[in-house]
Amino acid sequence: MKLFELGEWSLIDHLAKTLPIGDDAYVIPQKENSLLFCCDTSVDGIHFDRDIMSFYEIGFRACACSISDIAGMGGVPLYALVALGIPKDCEFSKVTELYSGMNDIASFFNMKIVGGDTVESDKLVITISVLGETEKPITRDGSKAGDFIGVSGKLGGSKKGLQILREDRQGFENLKKRYIMAMPRVKEGLILKDMVTSMIDISDGLVMDLYHLSWASKNGMSIKKGLVPIDEGASLDDALFGSDDYELLFTFSKDVSIPGFATVIGEVINKEGVFLDGEMIEPKGYEHFRQI
Amino acid sequence: MKLFELGEWSLIDHLAKTLPIGDDAYVIPQKENSLLFCCDTSVDGIHFDRDIMSFYEIGFRACACSISDIAGMGGVPLYALVALGIPKDCEFSKVTELYSGMNDIASFFNMKIVGGDTVESDKLVITISVLGETEKPITRDGSKAGDFIGVSGKLGGSKKGLQILREDRQGFENLKKRYIMAMPRVKEGLILKDMVTSMIDISDGLVMDLYHLSWASKNGMSIKKGLVPIDEGASLDDALFGSDDYELLFTFSKDVSIPGFATVIGEVINKEGVFLDGEMIEPKGYEHFRQI
Repeated sequence: MKLFELGEWSLIDHLAKTLPIGDDAYVIPQKENSLLFCCDTSVDGIHFDRDIMSFYEIGFRACACSISDIAGMGGVPLYALVALGIPKDCEFSKVTELYSGMNDIASFFNMKIVGGDTVESDKLVITISVLGETEKPITRDGSKAGDFIGVSGKLGGSKKGLQILREDRQGFENLKKRYIMAMPRVKEGLILKDMVTSMIDISDGLVMDLYHLSWASKNGMSIKKGLVPIDEGASLDDALFGSDDYELLFTFSKDVSIPGFATVIGEVINKEGVFLDGEMIEPKGYEHFRQI
Repeated sequence: MKLFELGEWSLIDHLAKTLPIGDDAYVIPQKENSLLFCCDTSVDGIHFDRDIMSFYEIGFRACACSISDIAGMGGVPLYALVALGIPKDCEFSKVTELYSGMNDIASFFNMKIVGGDTVESDKLVITISVLGETEKPITRDGSKAGDFIGVSGKLGGSKKGLQILREDRQGFENLKKRYIMAMPRVKEGLILKDMVTSMIDISDGLVMDLYHLSWASKNGMSIKKGLVPIDEGASLDDALFGSDDYELLFTFSKDVSIPGFATVIGEVINKEGVFLDGEMIEPKGYEHFRQI
């Protein structure tokens, strides 16, 4: 069977039979804080589009994705390696720009880029591996029926911003920035880690990431349309299915008060699946390999 | 300036102005042992050739390269992440084979593959990031004039093996295996770490890696042709310039006795550069981007 017949989710399911995958980052317990270890790959034409993004922005965003995985576990990023596959006819100044974008977001989070590998490839491919740490790692599997479901910030802006950039429309600077320079919620993750039962960063879209929480905890996620916080200018559909919002999605016990940056959108239930106003909604989001 | 005009070494020189690169792995000091953090990328058609290697062998070898970087610092590999870019028309069974090769070499070294990322790309691209540890990290910059230069095992077999595979010649199984399933010298690195002043793994070729030691320590490396240990069937040229031998190259004080798996090939001198029987030899080895 070829990968486009199998699809990304089934491939990951198969790999999960032998590899300990299933969270945003792998937890390495230590005597004091736990280490968090994760990586993220961005490929030209799939994860970014050189027509609508500068090399600075591509670097910034590639780094943001990996940092967000650490935020999703309630951790802080410490060190990163950059593995770069890059065409040989690329201008050196573009490489400098790329690193400049990566360095800027790394510095913002006090993360050090400490090395990597630079090789020739037909297309630009960037893998950022991050080592982080946390006093208390939050995994995807901790929710219990009766918990509330919460989300940080607003959703859908990233998808809408990408659409506006592709259509080359003037204005909408906030939405464009939401796509291009999404900021991982590290600070928010640190606050949430002491009050939540499970957490994930929203990279595949709200519904898809609710499914990830549902599958990991073997219970269901029931949310209400009217409660979903939507970025100004985006639609409910953008908020439900748009990837790369890099907000935090979490569950928490009903007796906990969550901070002002977060919104309650629903409740954990006994029945597996994701439900919108009581109706089951299919897992739908960007899936690698599927498109032919 | 385009990358093919600049070349890999100059690119790395430029990057080294802002990034702490310059060793096989980055050293993260801890209360007890230091952590070692490194990654290595293999690209289809550049680092491996699908016509002469199975997916099992490609996986095995991609993992070996990263483990060898840890060995070159005197460490043991502990955890690895696999970032895989893979074409969508690839058979699922090939992915299984690839992971099987990676798992086999990982198990051999008690290293755990703990996650990664799997994305669609035109060509197969594998980045393996490894977290290792050591009681005593050995860097490239510690040699002093008067130290001896040593090398583990024999050299040149990997380059010769690749040539034989490309020519599709029968026999020469040992040389073929030397290329395809090179074994990183983790055990040897652990022994050497207590007796050497600097160390590196030979991935760019003996002469090129001697230059890396020379540049890092700001002194010179003088070796003798007659002392270089050569794999049976390989030539001196293979041993001097062939990449991917994954042996260990190191310097040590003259009053130290080195183990039987190693050979003394020369001496550290005051004059910067690499010298073969007294004559300076140019840095020459595989360089990314250079070939047009």
